[in-house]
Amino acid sequence: MLFPWKYLQKSVPLFAWSRDYNIDKAVSDLVAGITVGLTLIPQSIAYASLAGLAPQYGLYSSLCGGLIYVFFGTIPELSIAPTALLSLLTISYTKNLSFGNVHGAILLCFLAGCVELLCGIVHLGFLVDFVSSPVVSAFTSASAITIASSQVKNLIGVKFEGETFYTIWKNVFEHITELKLADTILGLSCCAVLLFMRKLKDYGAPLIDSGKKQSTFKKMIWLFSVAKNALVVVCCAAAAFVLDYYNETPFTLTGRVPTGWPNVSLPLFYLEKGNTTITFKDMLYELETGIIFVPFIAILANIGIAKAFAKGKAVDASQEMIAVGLCNIVGSVFGSYPVNASFSRAAVGSSSGIRTPLAGVYTAAMVFLAFTLLTPYFPYIPKTTLAAVIICAVIFMVELMIAQRIWKTNKLDLFPFTITFICCLVIGIEMGILIGILVDIIKVLYVSARPKVSIDQIIIGTSPGYVRITILSSMPFFSAEYVRETVLKEDLLKIGTHQYVVIDLGRIESMDYTAVMCMGELIKDLKNNEKKVFLLLDKEYIINCLKGVCGKDLVICATEWDLQNSISEHQDASATSLAIDVRNEVEKTTKL
Amino acid sequence: MLFPWKYLQKSVPLFAWSRDYNIDKAVSDLVAGITVGLTLIPQSIAYASLAGLAPQYGLYSSLCGGLIYVFFGTIPELSIAPTALLSLLTISYTKNLSFGNVHGAILLCFLAGCVELLCGIVHLGFLVDFVSSPVVSAFTSASAITIASSQVKNLIGVKFEGETFYTIWKNVFEHITELKLADTILGLSCCAVLLFMRKLKDYGAPLIDSGKKQSTFKKMIWLFSVAKNALVVVCCAAAAFVLDYYNETPFTLTGRVPTGWPNVSLPLFYLEKGNTTITFKDMLYELETGIIFVPFIAILANIGIAKAFAKGKAVDASQEMIAVGLCNIVGSVFGSYPVNASFSRAAVGSSSGIRTPLAGVYTAAMVFLAFTLLTPYFPYIPKTTLAAVIICAVIFMVELMIAQRIWKTNKLDLFPFTITFICCLVIGIEMGILIGILVDIIKVLYVSARPKVSIDQIIIGTSPGYVRITILSSMPFFSAEYVRETVLKEDLLKIGTHQYVVIDLGRIESMDYTAVMCMGELIKDLKNNEKKVFLLLDKEYIINCLKGVCGKDLVICATEWDLQNSISEHQDASATSLAIDVRNEVEKTTKL
Repeated sequence: MLFPWKYLQKSVPLFAWSRDYNIDKAVSDLVAGITVGLTLIPQSIAYASLAGLAPQYGLYSSLCGGLIYVFFGTIPELSIAPTALLSLLTISYTKNLSFGNVHGAILLCFLAGCVELLCGIVHLGFLVDFVSSPVVSAFTSASAITIASSQVKNLIGVKFEGETFYTIWKNVFEHITELKLADTILGLSCCAVLLFMRKLKDYGAPLIDSGKKQSTFKKMIWLFSVAKNALVVVCCAAAAFVLDYYNETPFTLTGRVPTGWPNVSLPLFYLEKGNTTITFKDMLYELETGIIFVPFIAILANIGIAKAFAKGKAVDASQEMIAVGLCNIVGSVFGSYPVNASFSRAAVGSSSGIRTPLAGVYTAAMVFLAFTLLTPYFPYIPKTTLAAVIICAVIFMVELMIAQRIWKTNKLDLFPFTITFICCLVIGIEMGILIGILVDIIKVLYVSARPKVSIDQIIIGTSPGYVRITILSSMPFFSAEYVRETVLKEDLLKIGTHQYVVIDLGRIESMDYTAVMCMGELIKDLKNNEKKVFLLLDKEYIINCLKGVCGKDLVICATEWDLQNSISEHQDASATSLAIDVRNEVEKTTKL
Repeated sequence: MLFPWKYLQKSVPLFAWSRDYNIDKAVSDLVAGITVGLTLIPQSIAYASLAGLAPQYGLYSSLCGGLIYVFFGTIPELSIAPTALLSLLTISYTKNLSFGNVHGAILLCFLAGCVELLCGIVHLGFLVDFVSSPVVSAFTSASAITIASSQVKNLIGVKFEGETFYTIWKNVFEHITELKLADTILGLSCCAVLLFMRKLKDYGAPLIDSGKKQSTFKKMIWLFSVAKNALVVVCCAAAAFVLDYYNETPFTLTGRVPTGWPNVSLPLFYLEKGNTTITFKDMLYELETGIIFVPFIAILANIGIAKAFAKGKAVDASQEMIAVGLCNIVGSVFGSYPVNASFSRAAVGSSSGIRTPLAGVYTAAMVFLAFTLLTPYFPYIPKTTLAAVIICAVIFMVELMIAQRIWKTNKLDLFPFTITFICCLVIGIEMGILIGILVDIIKVLYVSARPKVSIDQIIIGTSPGYVRITILSSMPFFSAEYVRETVLKEDLLKIGTHQYVVIDLGRIESMDYTAVMCMGELIKDLKNNEKKVFLLLDKEYIINCLKGVCGKDLVICATEWDLQNSISEHQDASATSLAIDVRNEVEKTTKL
């Protein structure tokens, strides 16, 4: 009985976190869910047009994510819905399809979901380990800066295209003269209010979960502070509504929310078009690399965002892949195009005090309301207010002070950090994190290609002593030649007096074929220089191979004790043989 | 005085190997150089048409390689001239150029040479270390099999297109009915003669260089055996010449050798064409990725071939890059298209007893003679004879028995070996070695992502004992989470009785930021489970960071001795405090 329950808790994390769900969490989730919903609805409408689809597809794509993720997701902040990046990828893969871009986008959503699900099922989640803390920190800060920058145009009411930090600010300065005063004033006021309310939270928050009773006043303040984003949006929309009533529209508004329910059906797997039938194979062929590239980028972005919001805890990436995969598969039935977690929504959720994935249900409910009851009111949300909400949520994700801590710990790690940060800002955040991961792995390969080798002269008492070569780190194949060269360059080994050489492989846990062969060559080189070589080593398979390469007359000792005995024996024997040589010489001389 | 001379020997290896040049080596090089020349001339004419160029460009491209490589090269077997692969790459990058494919090919040769030279100068040669022995062995065997297979069509006198092992043999069986009997008989006879003469070498060879006098008979036999390839080619050509005199042409012949000297000039860096000027920048733009991809593939193939013929010795890859780069740069002045070492020529050179790069000069001389004195005679070389020479040279490079040795040493290494071998045969040898290298690196990453951790219960005497966690291998960032999970899963740590835990980091030479943070999290986890954690560790920077993460109450010991003392002290103190607790309890009870 124990096993299936644990297994169930792991596969459907809802069962795990719902057990200690309480009223505090419920309130937090409700407030945060509504806030994320208020951000999501205008965002998803905008992203749908970015993907070359009608606005309602943005809302269709926002319906299922939260409802599925509540069962399978592990990171509360992630809100699975349209994102800028996947919208751009969708349009690039679907714009010229013979079976139509809408069918194409929905099929792509289904297929991307299947690939993500598959990656999760075969436990590719271990790949998340290859994203190091410095890379995640750089990605987080750069994402926050990029997203805050991208909202500046809405904050000041100008319009232009631009995705990366560099292009955005170039455009801002070029269009600064088109600035709308009303938008700017409202936006900056919203920012000021939001930042003040954030401070209030610090006053109200500390007592949550501590078990002690809170005063009603403090509770109110806390509720007020976590609801800040929703409150600001609702107040501004109300103001715009009233002004509109008096025929005044000073602010840039979100605009009409589309109506009409999605067509619930499986994606098209074949299509009759005139005389020809487009088969599933033709469709796959037309979607090209999108079937691999879209889920790959989605997983990469998800991992980055999940790690940024996991606060140092381990991310169960396989489970996340399954969750996002299912969101896409189920979504495709309701007319969704590829969806994913978004950094800006995660930041808004986090700043609104989100506690569990249940918040996603409220977000989905808001989307549902947008279709029904609230349709007339949504258009009045000013764009600048949403920009202020997003900016105030993401700027606190920028933490460049971590560079100092990295510097103190391991200076080399500043290298992937800086590369990731710069590439994210200049090229784009997804390519940036990819380059960062590669640079980081190359850094590890570089470090392991240069293992530490200590070469010491050991003299005990009056004995002639020996040279001890210790390989301190593991020795993969690409480091073997370096080790050999390092040893052969060593001056200690060139001086004729040191004829005993100990190679200490005791710290090596495993050796590949190339390394063993190279070690064999090194021993041969030393023998050719008339050294007597002793090996400290207890791995049977390495011993056998080395004997194969270097011949039988290799002294191999399993322990330090054996080693010292062997050296003493050999040194005594050679002293004796030297004595015999001297005596022979003397005898010869005498004979002469 | 010593330094410049050593430096000169390193930069111009001619000065190093020419010092002990002797008559034996001279004879070997002469014979081998002529033999390689006889193979190279028909090959280069064929490759030129593969590159979409007039036949004479094949000969132009064969002139400089040997002459430059004799100064800068280190592997005698490498003959720098046209190859099948670079010819195919050349045509794919130059076929649609606005400034003409001939100018394009020559410019590409110059630019590829510059990139190779640059890679050599900045010492990218260390990249050669990333090609492991199993990958080289698999590449060598697969190359030999592919090249032998590609010659089968010439051996039996049929014609078809096909590059990889699979396509070649498919074509051979499809075209088997077109087999020419005369060619097949001559080819197989040549093979038989060559294999017999190879046996003769074993009889004549052992005494070379051993200092003892050889009998004239043995010397003759040795000369006869190393000259076998040249002799067979000359005899067959003579036979074909005589038959032609009597108007009989039973064999497929090589055909006319082009005449005309190359135009000695720098590659075109701009071109006036009608009214427009094509600038150097336009040319670079039209050559696209070729400028990077051609030298990349050339270096990759060169490294593979160099390692295959270096017989286990280290390859100075930076020097090789410089040598091949210079061959291309100088070659481009004489109308060469991109050139490189070729596996088949290296095998022919090796089987003809090549000793030093001086053989390249004789090869170049043969190319020169082909232009002048020997022009009338070259066309008579039967294609089947050349095929026999190449097949008999390469088949001895196949050594699949190495798989058994790899199996005995490190079973995991069979994985890159097999992948490389299969990919080389199925996809092509260059893509094969590239995939092999990647698989090999992934294997290393996989192994280092799972470091060995030993968790033992240590009980000394009647003390309560402790649990000791030892990290046995290095711990890069992508292994940190695994280590933490492994430790937390351990049952020994769950039992309440073991409250003392020692983490032994003594074997860790360096730790990156992520690993340090993760170790900090692990220690926090253990503390939350009410364990007292002791660290065995002497690296100051790791200690500082861990203190930052886990707080000050961390017991850190630099040596085993300190550790044992600390544990004893703590255990005593806790025994005392337990005693006090008990006494208090007793007192309480008494009072009641």
